[in-house]
Amino acid sequence: MKKIRSEIIAIGNEILAGWTLNTNSHWISQRLYEIGVTVEWMTTIADTEAEIIAALKLADTRADIILCTGGLGPTPDDITKSTIAGFFGSSLVTDEATLTHIKNLFAGRNLGMSPTNIKQAVVPDNAELIFNPIGTAPGLMFTKNEKLFFFMPGVPGEMKQMINSFILDIISARYQLDQLETFILRTTGIPESRLFEKLATVLNEGPDVPVSFLPKITGVDIKIRISRQPREVYQRVRTLCDQIRRIAGKYIYTETEQEMAQVLGNLLRTEHLTLSVAESFTGGSIASQITDVPGSSEYFQGALICYSNESKIKDLEVSAQTIQNYGAVSEETVREMLSGVRKMFQTDCAIATSGIAGPGGGTTAKPVGLAYVGALFRDKVLVKKFNFGKDRLINKDRGTMAGLESLRRLIL
Amino acid sequence: MKKIRSEIIAIGNEILAGWTLNTNSHWISQRLYEIGVTVEWMTTIADTEAEIIAALKLADTRADIILCTGGLGPTPDDITKSTIAGFFGSSLVTDEATLTHIKNLFAGRNLGMSPTNIKQAVVPDNAELIFNPIGTAPGLMFTKNEKLFFFMPGVPGEMKQMINSFILDIISARYQLDQLETFILRTTGIPESRLFEKLATVLNEGPDVPVSFLPKITGVDIKIRISRQPREVYQRVRTLCDQIRRIAGKYIYTETEQEMAQVLGNLLRTEHLTLSVAESFTGGSIASQITDVPGSSEYFQGALICYSNESKIKDLEVSAQTIQNYGAVSEETVREMLSGVRKMFQTDCAIATSGIAGPGGGTTAKPVGLAYVGALFRDKVLVKKFNFGKDRLINKDRGTMAGLESLRRLIL
Repeated sequence: MKKIRSEIIAIGNEILAGWTLNTNSHWISQRLYEIGVTVEWMTTIADTEAEIIAALKLADTRADIILCTGGLGPTPDDITKSTIAGFFGSSLVTDEATLTHIKNLFAGRNLGMSPTNIKQAVVPDNAELIFNPIGTAPGLMFTKNEKLFFFMPGVPGEMKQMINSFILDIISARYQLDQLETFILRTTGIPESRLFEKLATVLNEGPDVPVSFLPKITGVDIKIRISRQPREVYQRVRTLCDQIRRIAGKYIYTETEQEMAQVLGNLLRTEHLTLSVAESFTGGSIASQITDVPGSSEYFQGALICYSNESKIKDLEVSAQTIQNYGAVSEETVREMLSGVRKMFQTDCAIATSGIAGPGGGTTAKPVGLAYVGALFRDKVLVKKFNFGKDRLINKDRGTMAGLESLRRLIL
Repeated sequence: MKKIRSEIIAIGNEILAGWTLNTNSHWISQRLYEIGVTVEWMTTIADTEAEIIAALKLADTRADIILCTGGLGPTPDDITKSTIAGFFGSSLVTDEATLTHIKNLFAGRNLGMSPTNIKQAVVPDNAELIFNPIGTAPGLMFTKNEKLFFFMPGVPGEMKQMINSFILDIISARYQLDQLETFILRTTGIPESRLFEKLATVLNEGPDVPVSFLPKITGVDIKIRISRQPREVYQRVRTLCDQIRRIAGKYIYTETEQEMAQVLGNLLRTEHLTLSVAESFTGGSIASQITDVPGSSEYFQGALICYSNESKIKDLEVSAQTIQNYGAVSEETVREMLSGVRKMFQTDCAIATSGIAGPGGGTTAKPVGLAYVGALFRDKVLVKKFNFGKDRLINKDRGTMAGLESLRRLIL
């Protein structure tokens, strides 16, 4: 089975200038992978004839399928259409069906049409048109040297519509594509290098499949994407995953795309447990991630974000003596925060954090990045000490992950 | 003045596979534009020797500055380093300073080092190393045919650190760059089309400069980027900004890149005011955004995230009668939440939210997206009703912005 290689080209100065984040190419690559097409190149270029021609020529030398977004709009800087007419040797003609569609669209919105809108119905005569139900610019498809070229508007909604209702079908019908399956094992609490070493033996023994390690601030995702055929290789990947689970199981918090707050939420719901949170170091980030999950009000009762000692003492009943003896950033204080917040909200479980998020506030004894993160599940309490780092936002993220993960492990 | 053209190359199968959204190239392009460097190409390629070499060769033909991210990690799929050593004719040597840094990093985190980590200190002998204070892989800089090549890790925090504290300085020192100035006016509380209509007259009258409207979930940023020369055009842009301020001033919360939480924080610090927050609808997101700001502990005392009526009654002293009469999602409840949380934390100011974030929990009378967002400043209280929408995360974001903005306006 021949491997089908594709290239995504985004045309747009606003992306190059850093004003628009290019989510189109990302979204298209996800859709293509689902049907078994590999994206080998993503390119972003300026809205000029020279750059568009250069990019198309290059793509023509290496890709089987070329998907372009942007530059089909009505404004004068959108020059893609005349440029590609040159590239494909087309004449530009007015398409009556498109013109009618544009007229209907404007009539439906009670808007007046302008000559610029009428220009949208002018298309290359050797292109197949892709209907745009929600916008004025039709998409274009060309076949050249056995290759498929698609041109779509840059507006995400219009582009997605064309991919979903036309382009994926065309590609699937034309090529015999592999069925792919993705294995994902999301880990936290172990650095990428350590994880890799633990797994080195089984990865070397295993089949020659690309195992991706995707490091994030809060953990490492292991991903393997593989065809279901041949069956023998597929089975060896399944065996490899079993081995990874056996070796790194305690670090794996999910084998889905779900975030940790969702994973913990599922566990709390299944076990009919309730949760409260006391946050100093993480400043509300744990509560916010928990409440990002739909239905979290079923198990989440509330949180106290206590940025002062007074609040810890008054609302969480942390003893003033404990803070005086050990400091607010200490295992002892976090233990009392846990029991205090559990009592305050009358919950089965609790998470608490205290630390120095930075960049200021550090001392030699208690430097920036020092944090105590604890979890409580009924009569079990676990508080761990961390030395995260100097970056405030990363510290908040890591402390949040550590808090959620601590409770997950305590419940299991 | 020669135009300096740059290319950003992202190396990573995880981007091509749609597993990771490429925010690195976007962020780098923003920083480069700020110092007057134009990004002409963004390319994403696979982690293979052939693709990396091909991309470097192509970039070498067209760009003055080439910035690459990704592939510097410790696992075998990170092959960038050996590949670029081949491209630049380097030998690989162990750098002692980097090795010491790696050892210190691991010692500080109480983690064991592995042979894989030691490999990170192996670098091309003809590269200038870029220090990585937060990670193990140093960045690399090469000069070849008067061109600058930079290689950075794909981890965003590490990449950003290298750009900010080394690469921008190197580029600025080497080239005489056109001084660009960006005018930014960040607005919230007015939809893009309304804002555009209000400003249509002055935009048409104004000079022929590209005014960009950048809509986000929480507001619209107006940006104008222009050279300081010729002076006459620059002055006309300044006049245009004055006109925008006159017409849309009440919606403009900052003329910097700062987020709203930072803007409000500056105001609270300047005015010596303290703040507490009571969050139901926003679930901790307001507290988390406030505490994202370094030094927020100066003015932020704490927050109560109250996901239950009991907590509102017990901790915030909202009267049970109010909740029974008007419901937890009501102006009356939010008013009592405001005075309750102010009393709980003894602060000058307070923000409170209550609503139905969705996707569940809506009724005909109180549909998903309904929210009351209030602010208190000494004896002044303002509670506003919103109908946001159906998306939970967008609702949380919009509610958070509305809360912060309400207090900002109340204080002014």
